[in-house]
Amino acid sequence: MGVHYLEKIKAFQQQNENRYRIVISCPDQPGIVAAVSEFLFKQQANIMESNQYTTDPDGGSFFLRIEFECQQDGDTRLEDGFQLIADHFQMEWQLVRVRNLKKLALFVSKELHCLQEILWEYQSGNLMADLAVIVSNHEDARELAETYGIPFHHIPANKDIRQQAERQQLELLEQYNIDTVILARYMQILTPAFLDNYKNNIINIHHSFLPAFIGAKPYERAFERGVKLIGATSHYVTSDLDEGPIIEQDIHRVNHKDKAEDLKRVGRLVERSVLMRAMKWHVDDRVIVHGNKTIVF
Amino acid sequence: MGVHYLEKIKAFQQQNENRYRIVISCPDQPGIVAAVSEFLFKQQANIMESNQYTTDPDGGSFFLRIEFECQQDGDTRLEDGFQLIADHFQMEWQLVRVRNLKKLALFVSKELHCLQEILWEYQSGNLMADLAVIVSNHEDARELAETYGIPFHHIPANKDIRQQAERQQLELLEQYNIDTVILARYMQILTPAFLDNYKNNIINIHHSFLPAFIGAKPYERAFERGVKLIGATSHYVTSDLDEGPIIEQDIHRVNHKDKAEDLKRVGRLVERSVLMRAMKWHVDDRVIVHGNKTIVF
Amino acid sequence: MGVHYLEKIKAFQQQNENRYRIVISCPDQPGIVAAVSEFLFKQQANIMESNQYTTDPDGGSFFLRIEFECQQDGDTRLEDGFQLIADHFQMEWQLVRVRNLKKLALFVSKELHCLQEILWEYQSGNLMADLAVIVSNHEDARELAETYGIPFHHIPANKDIRQQAERQQLELLEQYNIDTVILARYMQILTPAFLDNYKNNIINIHHSFLPAFIGAKPYERAFERGVKLIGATSHYVTSDLDEGPIIEQDIHRVNHKDKAEDLKRVGRLVERSVLMRAMKWHVDDRVIVHGNKTIVF
Amino acid sequence: MGVHYLEKIKAFQQQNENRYRIVISCPDQPGIVAAVSEFLFKQQANIMESNQYTTDPDGGSFFLRIEFECQQDGDTRLEDGFQLIADHFQMEWQLVRVRNLKKLALFVSKELHCLQEILWEYQSGNLMADLAVIVSNHEDARELAETYGIPFHHIPANKDIRQQAERQQLELLEQYNIDTVILARYMQILTPAFLDNYKNNIINIHHSFLPAFIGAKPYERAFERGVKLIGATSHYVTSDLDEGPIIEQDIHRVNHKDKAEDLKRVGRLVERSVLMRAMKWHVDDRVIVHGNKTIVF
Repeated sequence: MGVHYLEKIKAFQQQNENRYRIVISCPDQPGIVAAVSEFLFKQQANIMESNQYTTDPDGGSFFLRIEFECQQDGDTRLEDGFQLIADHFQMEWQLVRVRNLKKLALFVSKELHCLQEILWEYQSGNLMADLAVIVSNHEDARELAETYGIPFHHIPANKDIRQQAERQQLELLEQYNIDTVILARYMQILTPAFLDNYKNNIINIHHSFLPAFIGAKPYERAFERGVKLIGATSHYVTSDLDEGPIIEQDIHRVNHKDKAEDLKRVGRLVERSVLMRAMKWHVDDRVIVHGNKTIVF
Repeated sequence: MGVHYLEKIKAFQQQNENRYRIVISCPDQPGIVAAVSEFLFKQQANIMESNQYTTDPDGGSFFLRIEFECQQDGDTRLEDGFQLIADHFQMEWQLVRVRNLKKLALFVSKELHCLQEILWEYQSGNLMADLAVIVSNHEDARELAETYGIPFHHIPANKDIRQQAERQQLELLEQYNIDTVILARYMQILTPAFLDNYKNNIINIHHSFLPAFIGAKPYERAFERGVKLIGATSHYVTSDLDEGPIIEQDIHRVNHKDKAEDLKRVGRLVERSVLMRAMKWHVDDRVIVHGNKTIVF
Repeated sequence: MGVHYLEKIKAFQQQNENRYRIVISCPDQPGIVAAVSEFLFKQQANIMESNQYTTDPDGGSFFLRIEFECQQDGDTRLEDGFQLIADHFQMEWQLVRVRNLKKLALFVSKELHCLQEILWEYQSGNLMADLAVIVSNHEDARELAETYGIPFHHIPANKDIRQQAERQQLELLEQYNIDTVILARYMQILTPAFLDNYKNNIINIHHSFLPAFIGAKPYERAFERGVKLIGATSHYVTSDLDEGPIIEQDIHRVNHKDKAEDLKRVGRLVERSVLMRAMKWHVDDRVIVHGNKTIVF
Repeated sequence: MGVHYLEKIKAFQQQNENRYRIVISCPDQPGIVAAVSEFLFKQQANIMESNQYTTDPDGGSFFLRIEFECQQDGDTRLEDGFQLIADHFQMEWQLVRVRNLKKLALFVSKELHCLQEILWEYQSGNLMADLAVIVSNHEDARELAETYGIPFHHIPANKDIRQQAERQQLELLEQYNIDTVILARYMQILTPAFLDNYKNNIINIHHSFLPAFIGAKPYERAFERGVKLIGATSHYVTSDLDEGPIIEQDIHRVNHKDKAEDLKRVGRLVERSVLMRAMKWHVDDRVIVHGNKTIVF
């Protein structure tokens, strides 16, 4: 299935050799933007894009994402310099060098439409990440993974062997140096112990517009309820099932002629595009988690 | 605010002097359409529009709505003639003469955006019904009602005086000969006794995409949950709160910058259009209730 | 990439062993539905779905599509029997046996996203057609075609060798017994002579919401114009460029931050879903061409 | 129709006593944000919201909108202080005190749905502007204007008396000290001489998704073309008919059953919401014109 996407990724990395993102959360107070922008100006940085948001200028939380170019002999000078500002404003912050792609693991079960969309966008050069490994509790995805040349690991999982399965999965994630886990219709629950390892870095796609139809069989229940819209929701996974911070949602219109099977078929299209958008925003560091919500820049 | 809508209604009635709708529900079996269409052909009726749906051709339920023109010396000949077919196929059916407009009562509380949309569409000649009376447990809508020349009745209502309020309301509805009650943001619960009087003829607008955020304060809860879409649902009212058959739903995109107040403001636009569509379909006899779902032709 | 879709197709054909569609266009007059439904009743046919539309009951055009089940020893009895009715009402009509899948040829150039969506839906068992051959004026699609096991033919084409190319293409289409040609981003103009061979059976996807941005480079022009929505349109091809009967359209929201390249990226998603819907409706015989418009049942 | 909206406006003005917006366009270069944010910090300003965009960090155009609170004894100190920065970066800029509402004139003809939506949102306290005067070449809007207590002026206008009409209109606009003219379905063309007086301050609603169906009778032409989507576009008016910078667009789905009259009816809903969004963004100084496009913050 070609390797030209590797060339696209290489080209992206070269174009973004000097590109950085800084993502900041802190208590709001006057002077933050002045301090950050003056710092960047002194580093001779060129701001490409900047987004900010405050929940409340009077004692709320402040969020800032700046993408900039900066010719540096090393990232550390930027990091060290910025630490002073960060300390002053009590910032949680992250400096990301754009050319260092996030390493992703995809978890799937038997439904492969989300996986296929991801692989496709990946090989089209539309997902600037390192799609390192595909993990499944079934064998169904192996052929697809191999077609695209992505390592595939079959780790059986069900509620009886959950701990053992997660131990194997965590070892694998460590081995591949994974940053973010994408649950691309992975139909198993993860334990809090597992989640702790990837806080705000596990993305799920739920096949309903949450908070409607939390839990199992949402399309069947949507059909029973006679809804006129079906939807999908991508969210960060927390220990409360389907209750984590929502990144993106979308819907599609249905009508009385649509059976549960039709809802599933239409819904798969919504799931594909919703998860894809959420993933792209995440790998571009556009999503900031604040409590149980997300800011999406 | 003008009375030219009365002229539009009169013109509509004249144009539809000979127009009928027949709406049928029955167990599916071969020959229904043949029998109905042959009957209409023999009455020299001209079919303008016809819609049908079966939940399952093999033992399911069959639904049919035909709009036709027929020059008759009286409706009864049509009705009597059709009864034979109806008996044969065990039909629930209704023959509606289009010029006989449905008589509507609007129930409102303090939020008037849905009422205003309805009044506006009514006076623009886009709602072919007889908007007979506006009922409220508050005085806020009186001025608006009077501007449009619609009788307004203030009937105090709250959970302590529910029975007394409903008795007054039912008397009023009987007095105005009401067919359908529209709860255009009427913030009181109705008792099963009240609902029984207007089965499948009370339409509510709920300010969320059901089944998400059933009950009170849906926008506040949507804000708390951090959803990326807000919605509205119009449904027939049953004794299960917000659980009745859904007629129409729609959504609008929101983002992290939107406060609960913004969700309400945007949501009001969605509520207005969703309720309006549901009402128009209802007065055009396009909605058939089947169990807890609707068929919308 | 698996052959289990062949099993799905086989299962579909078995389930629909006795399923037919009749699609009718004729001058409107009373009695059509009565005659057709009586005929079907006498054949002991069981109507599964029926849709009709009249442009004007008084002298307009009438359109009917009925899907039914009928146990017959041969299709011809149905066809012969129906001819009498068809003659009486001056019908253009078509009786389709559902199990006889339409044979499709896909024409592509270098952009493969629509092809990939089609192949994917095909192998997922969501496109009940016989995807017989892929034709391209470039080699880019060969690998993809072979992965899915579809015959691929490279026929060079450009405006200097148009006639020669079309001669080769027509021979190929005849050889594969093709019913419908899908232009899945095929960037060559077809001559009227070619089009005559597949009247109302060549479907194109144009990358704008027609009639905006007819012709070349619609995304670049959309970017120049500063539109806030981009779209795609699927239509039957006629000799007037981008002027044929529209089957389906859809749009996606964009904003000032989106460059022409972003419009293309987002637009590809719209193109994929719009073409897919149009194709499915076409292979299900849901689209009737009337003048320069379509009725979509 | 109540005057409580005046109270809402008064409350808004009091809440925003110290609120300002600064809107800047200039050639992009490093240091702009640092300079502006440092200036604001020194004024003890508290930034409430900030948006920026660059067409190209390397020699492109830079746009910035900041909303901030600042306790000042007078606006002039802010203005004078900022002029130094503005000169240095060759800025076009505007400092707006939020409590000083924009003065609007509404131009209408005979179709009043957009006017009604505006009046309604105005009286609901959702449009923070001073709706100073309604001007029409017909008498139809007089009653509605008077109901809401807005001065109404009937100035006959058609192509034969265009210059005379515009002279009267301009006098009136001057008399009312108008900032922005809203063409809420005003069916007359304005001359370049008129437009020059309100550059980037005349907003039109066109009843199609531009650039489709430029000019007269777009719904009729949409019906003839058989489109599956109809739309509306709000844009700043330039001397090229329907070619000015687009602020907002939206669409609604239609189908083969919809006549031109139905397209108009559905389209009116789209026009109302599109114009309303564009107006709100404009009065909030969220729209910046750049060439023939808009940046909408």
